Amino acid sequence: MTPAHLSRHRRHRLRLPLLLFLRHHRTAAAAPLRIPLSHPTFLIWSSNTGVGKTLVSTGLAFASLFSPAAPAAAAPSRFLYLKPVQTGFPADSDSLFLFNKLASLSLLHRPRFPVLASHRVLMASPSAASAAAAGVSLAEAPRGGGGSGLGMVDLGVCEERRWEGERSGDLDGDGAVSELVSETVFAWKEAVSPHLAAERESGAVEDGAVVEMVERGLRAGLRDGKEETLCVVETAGGVASPGPSGSLQCDLYRPFRLPAVLVGDGRLGGISATISAYESLRIRGYDVVAVVFEDHGLLNEEPLMAYFRNRIPVLVLPHVPEDLSNDLMEWFSDSRSIFDMLKNIMKSSYLERMQTLLDMPKKARDIFWWPFTQHKIVSEDDITVIDSRYGENFAVFKDQDDKSLNQTFDACASWWTQGPNASLQTELARDMGYAAARFGHVMFPENVYEPALECAELLLGGVGEGWASRVYFSDNGSTAIEIALKMAFRKFCVDIGLVSETSIGDPSEKQPELLVLALKGSYHGDTLGAMEAQSPSCYTGFIQQPWYTGRGLFLDPPTVFLHRSVWKLSLPAMIHNKSFAYDKMMFSSRDEIFCKSRDESDLSGIYSLYISQHLSGSMGSKYIGALIIEPVIQGAGGMLMVDPLFQRVLVNECRRRKIPVIFDEVFTGFWRLGTESAAELLGCVPDIACFAKLMTGGMIPLAVTLATNAVFTAFLGDSKLKALLHGHSYTAHATGCTAATKSIKWFKDSQMNPNVIPQGKMLKELWDFELVTQISSHPAVERVISLGTLFALELQTEGSDAGYASMYARALLQMLREDGVYMRPLGNVIYLMCGPCTPPEICYQLLVKLQRNLEEFYRVHARVETSAIVGAK
Amino acid sequence: MTPAHLSRHRRHRLRLPLLLFLRHHRTAAAAPLRIPLSHPTFLIWSSNTGVGKTLVSTGLAFASLFSPAAPAAAAPSRFLYLKPVQTGFPADSDSLFLFNKLASLSLLHRPRFPVLASHRVLMASPSAASAAAAGVSLAEAPRGGGGSGLGMVDLGVCEERRWEGERSGDLDGDGAVSELVSETVFAWKEAVSPHLAAERESGAVEDGAVVEMVERGLRAGLRDGKEETLCVVETAGGVASPGPSGSLQCDLYRPFRLPAVLVGDGRLGGISATISAYESLRIRGYDVVAVVFEDHGLLNEEPLMAYFRNRIPVLVLPHVPEDLSNDLMEWFSDSRSIFDMLKNIMKSSYLERMQTLLDMPKKARDIFWWPFTQHKIVSEDDITVIDSRYGENFAVFKDQDDKSLNQTFDACASWWTQGPNASLQTELARDMGYAAARFGHVMFPENVYEPALECAELLLGGVGEGWASRVYFSDNGSTAIEIALKMAFRKFCVDIGLVSETSIGDPSEKQPELLVLALKGSYHGDTLGAMEAQSPSCYTGFIQQPWYTGRGLFLDPPTVFLHRSVWKLSLPAMIHNKSFAYDKMMFSSRDEIFCKSRDESDLSGIYSLYISQHLSGSMGSKYIGALIIEPVIQGAGGMLMVDPLFQRVLVNECRRRKIPVIFDEVFTGFWRLGTESAAELLGCVPDIACFAKLMTGGMIPLAVTLATNAVFTAFLGDSKLKALLHGHSYTAHATGCTAATKSIKWFKDSQMNPNVIPQGKMLKELWDFELVTQISSHPAVERVISLGTLFALELQTEGSDAGYASMYARALLQMLREDGVYMRPLGNVIYLMCGPCTPPEICYQLLVKLQRNLEEFYRVHARVETSAIVGAK
Repeated sequence: MTPAHLSRHRRHRLRLPLLLFLRHHRTAAAAPLRIPLSHPTFLIWSSNTGVGKTLVSTGLAFASLFSPAAPAAAAPSRFLYLKPVQTGFPADSDSLFLFNKLASLSLLHRPRFPVLASHRVLMASPSAASAAAAGVSLAEAPRGGGGSGLGMVDLGVCEERRWEGERSGDLDGDGAVSELVSETVFAWKEAVSPHLAAERESGAVEDGAVVEMVERGLRAGLRDGKEETLCVVETAGGVASPGPSGSLQCDLYRPFRLPAVLVGDGRLGGISATISAYESLRIRGYDVVAVVFEDHGLLNEEPLMAYFRNRIPVLVLPHVPEDLSNDLMEWFSDSRSIFDMLKNIMKSSYLERMQTLLDMPKKARDIFWWPFTQHKIVSEDDITVIDSRYGENFAVFKDQDDKSLNQTFDACASWWTQGPNASLQTELARDMGYAAARFGHVMFPENVYEPALECAELLLGGVGEGWASRVYFSDNGSTAIEIALKMAFRKFCVDIGLVSETSIGDPSEKQPELLVLALKGSYHGDTLGAMEAQSPSCYTGFIQQPWYTGRGLFLDPPTVFLHRSVWKLSLPAMIHNKSFAYDKMMFSSRDEIFCKSRDESDLSGIYSLYISQHLSGSMGSKYIGALIIEPVIQGAGGMLMVDPLFQRVLVNECRRRKIPVIFDEVFTGFWRLGTESAAELLGCVPDIACFAKLMTGGMIPLAVTLATNAVFTAFLGDSKLKALLHGHSYTAHATGCTAATKSIKWFKDSQMNPNVIPQGKMLKELWDFELVTQISSHPAVERVISLGTLFALELQTEGSDAGYASMYARALLQMLREDGVYMRPLGNVIYLMCGPCTPPEICYQLLVKLQRNLEEFYRVHARVETSAIVGAK
Repeated sequence: MTPAHLSRHRRHRLRLPLLLFLRHHRTAAAAPLRIPLSHPTFLIWSSNTGVGKTLVSTGLAFASLFSPAAPAAAAPSRFLYLKPVQTGFPADSDSLFLFNKLASLSLLHRPRFPVLASHRVLMASPSAASAAAAGVSLAEAPRGGGGSGLGMVDLGVCEERRWEGERSGDLDGDGAVSELVSETVFAWKEAVSPHLAAERESGAVEDGAVVEMVERGLRAGLRDGKEETLCVVETAGGVASPGPSGSLQCDLYRPFRLPAVLVGDGRLGGISATISAYESLRIRGYDVVAVVFEDHGLLNEEPLMAYFRNRIPVLVLPHVPEDLSNDLMEWFSDSRSIFDMLKNIMKSSYLERMQTLLDMPKKARDIFWWPFTQHKIVSEDDITVIDSRYGENFAVFKDQDDKSLNQTFDACASWWTQGPNASLQTELARDMGYAAARFGHVMFPENVYEPALECAELLLGGVGEGWASRVYFSDNGSTAIEIALKMAFRKFCVDIGLVSETSIGDPSEKQPELLVLALKGSYHGDTLGAMEAQSPSCYTGFIQQPWYTGRGLFLDPPTVFLHRSVWKLSLPAMIHNKSFAYDKMMFSSRDEIFCKSRDESDLSGIYSLYISQHLSGSMGSKYIGALIIEPVIQGAGGMLMVDPLFQRVLVNECRRRKIPVIFDEVFTGFWRLGTESAAELLGCVPDIACFAKLMTGGMIPLAVTLATNAVFTAFLGDSKLKALLHGHSYTAHATGCTAATKSIKWFKDSQMNPNVIPQGKMLKELWDFELVTQISSHPAVERVISLGTLFALELQTEGSDAGYASMYARALLQMLREDGVYMRPLGNVIYLMCGPCTPPEICYQLLVKLQRNLEEFYRVHARVETSAIVGAK
């Protein structure tokens, strides 16, 4: 590991077409990761620096390539060693250490098969490159030279050797050879933390570049052949040591989520160091398959085995001789059985993981009862195996030629819940762990604890600002709506004198019938109470919901949308008949739609009249006791954008009649539409509002119903029977409140969320205007909506019914899934949904993919249509 | 820190009446912890051994006692240093080091006020005691002697000094003195991990003894007076280093959840070590208020400040001279400003915490809208401030004379959700962090991921064993019930031909009316659909639930209970009239009630007839489409135990009529009643069952509806419209499934849960038979139920109405809360509920407290009653 070692290197140029790329930042919009699963690959972590990671890697290489007494049928093997980040280079080079040690070991222990061994160092900082060159010869100084200040340079050190094995002359060896690749990707000169070395040596490397290079390194292991391959990626320093950009390594490598071997610490204090390192990996979603450490005679294995009991095997390596002149040959021999054991643990855990992934679709199909799914038409092939998520992306298992994990953008935002990017997810995981450890869940009524209080304060100061004064917690959108309806009805009854203090609990009291005023196409949840507030549809029929009666007055709303590059208004028939040119109304821009000056327009009066006509008719003993709307966008109804002017007029008309107003912001809340609440877009406030989904950042269920003080007051009295007697076990659970607190703050903090325009309390435009306009002009597209984190389009149904279009939508989405974009159909509407923090470049890429697939799809579709017409003739 | 230091000690006996106790295990039933909050108290942790915890403690003592340029009005101060666990003693003694260093510092920097300083070492292992004695004089050898093998011995080293301060002669000093107490609690001789030392030196100390001694140490800081007190408890080794029993220190001290100062590591690898140590503290629910570390010139503060940004201040101490002869006087002077800063951070974080705790009741009352709470009658004093929970206990803040946190048993199990003991809570927190980091939440329909699959498999192999084949996930009991009803109705309609494949979605189809068969007094949740399955009550009236109609046929069930030491049966009037002696029926034991041989009894026939009469009447276009029952115990209805024979007969009668059977096990499931499912107690299986609450171990919301394959099949078809179109955003969320998986396994594993009788698939009896019997005979008690984790009693209502008794119940519960038992009223029923792992000794204690308070209460109550009667005359 001295510079002298390098002098033996045969050097040649490596083909590295990615160099130019590396000198720029890896943008967030790089090609999706594809992680091969064709062979076992592990990250080697350690609980501290200097506890022998490289010895473990070397021992594993030794155990892999030098198989003892292998059966005659044994295949040659391959061992890939990747050291992405090396400091102290060239004095320290872990890849060279491993390479050299194996060379020495090959003299003492002949490998079973001959081994082609290579050692490479790809990139170095200018000063590391100079130092390395000094050790070689000036004539071979690397391209780019040292000290140029232009970042990492292509070092391209490569040395190759062949070690003869036992079978070198054997006939049955059949010319088979084993292979060792030992590779350092990035090297810096100073023996300090990589982020310091990178800074001091003008050798900055972005996280994306490290990820990209590691991915390439892993893919280099792909090869047809019968070799048993084992691949290890060795980290630098401890699990939370910074990488070259300053990101912690446990975060840097998280996109791969490779299974891990943790090299523990056998010294005094090592128990704690090992456990804490494990916990840092664990709360980042890593699976550790083994803990191995050097014996220092302190019996650290006892408490470690107790801690890891039933989870992870703990292996103890013999003490490493402290004499620096010792060549460790004896130590490796003595450790051989431990390394064999470790190698076998790694291999069997790999096989187990593969088997689990392969078995999952069948098992899932056999025992899950998925919601909203006709199981009869779901085949095993239709089932998506999700290994993990990181930020906006799933890691999807593909059981194709070469098995792999494929980074796939969650463009359905997992039923519209998702908000976190990778950093927020990491922080949420840690904070949720904290909340669970501090509180678990504790009883809420008449109690107070920090997360619930902080969450409530944030809500009242945020989405409830200026109108709400009380927070009622529940579990999901549906329960929040049922609570909202109970609140609204009580408020209404008290206001118009339908109930009085004395009438509480009097069963002889004549019971009026209360209806809800709602818009057709709206959706408020799947429990009966929430469904009763929805207009009849195939979801409410007898077969689905035998108890549904539809206790509402349902109005047809006017909608707006982008069509052929222009924002247009579509009026329902009821209004249409009585007006004239409004049907064809166009807007100069989306902003105009939200302009408050429209309140003074003729259309405003027409809306008002239309609503009054419906509300003023005689209803006998029936009363409209609540208005409920999804502000601006009706989500499940097909991403319909209701004319905000209409909703504003509706709210005003209800206010005049003492009908409490409920905003269902379960879908629209927390920046979904570009503002923290959609009420801000609408320009008016409700009496009651419901939030859920994005509130916890998309981690776990939690919902709230906010209310004004006037609503709250309608439940005050001397009797408990006048209180709101509705609750769920996990009301205001601490973990959910903690996640909500974190997410609510994060989304609106321009330090954390670069999409937030600080002064504007809005997200910047995420969907590229040009592309959106182009797509709206595509002949296959009926209408487009883009607002906040939402982009939606409805496919043209002309010449075919909606069912037909919906089938086409499914086919199109299938193509997009293959293209790394996970979407869900919504009839003949397809949509992309990102998080509040998703960079616009990612949204751009999504739109490009959508447009490309739409083109492709349309071309095929149009051809089929034409030939069908020709055939019909 | 050499033995020579000890020779200067003035030794005298300490009064330690707890010694006898310490020689035994601290049972789990020890007196509840009471943690004083009258002054700031902190745990000093370090990220590794040897990074200078004691220097930090000493520096803090220096900054506290030697206030620079304090204003004239400054008060004297007190500094308490507690080292609970010391190894390497007497050669190493951190408390002595601190004491001596301050003595030296007092010569260079006069304290503002005179200081009374004392140093103590309380308990030592025999060999440590011998070594210490050798350093003193043999005549003063400690009581108990060394090497006796009888555990720790009372060492009782105590040295006191007085250091003169600047104000020693001042008039305005008014005789005021400052005080330093530096104390080691347990000391062992070998310089190894405490668990090893304890084992090798026959000096075992249980966790409970450490906790008890630390509590005493903290309480020693309590004192009237104006001294500014700062108290630090210094841990040993790293955060996850084992304590004397082998428990990790971060677990050992968790009952206190003291705020923490983390001494980080400035060396190479120290960034990682510091962050990982922090994360280990964090995922155990600790609050870290500052990170401080020694400068080693590596700029570790940069990445640490980036990591802790906006959370925790990071302070850097000057490099410590490596020359061992250096007395550090200069270093302490140089570090003075950092220690002042650290001390101020600690003080202000303490003040902030206190203010938060004090403000919480008012804030909560102003903005929360608690479920099931009449806010008008809740005063600030009624509000419980919960600082944290650990296992079965809350830490409740009491704002009384001396502010404190009080360990309080959660005997309402936080709306019946709770299961974890402290170990399980810790593991769940870590696993939930893992799941959140690995998955966050991912879309469920047509997808599969490990936690959901594993959870579903465990459910089908556990509570669903032998009957269920499908798992439908939702969010809470109420949604699980609505789903169950939809399943049952469909199954019924398909079975009796009410819907056919062709009729799907046909609105012209005549729609029959479906009713549910249920028992009076049952409860299934608060959403409309779940409420419709409940019989009318004050919860379903117009004022509460305007849309409730009560779509059921509700039968009055026979109940069983313990009364005056005997299990008795009570028949509803309908049956009563038609039978004879059954009303007075008694059972020889609780087991007899569950005996299957009762199926052959006359009573079985009478039940059958009673049910048939209700089911066979003409119902026009109405059908009974489902049976729903809470098996064995009706929870919210008042902890009523329904005769299991009756429920079994009911199930059979419904089966004969093709009415699908739903078990609502939301309350009863997962060992609540002593078996994993209450169906096991009942001795029959349902077609559909709902689980929630305890399923996640009581951490976060998650619910499932299990169903047979026959039920599932009723939803198969070619159309999606035939599928079950009901779902919630967070369906099968990974964090919940992970928590459920862990808890389900833990509860039934006799290694983890000593309450499980391995062969019996049952919990052992948790409630002491004698005490239960005694309580059932108390004149104030109407009836008692004890089963599994539940003990309930109904107060006598004779001579008063139920509302009156319920008022009395509240008063009784208030007394119990003061006694460290947090209970919630359920009308005139009061109950204790423990977790599946709660030791029977704890249950015993709870019963004792209940009995004692009942006696006390009854005495007062009876006196009041009597005087009221006298007064009336």
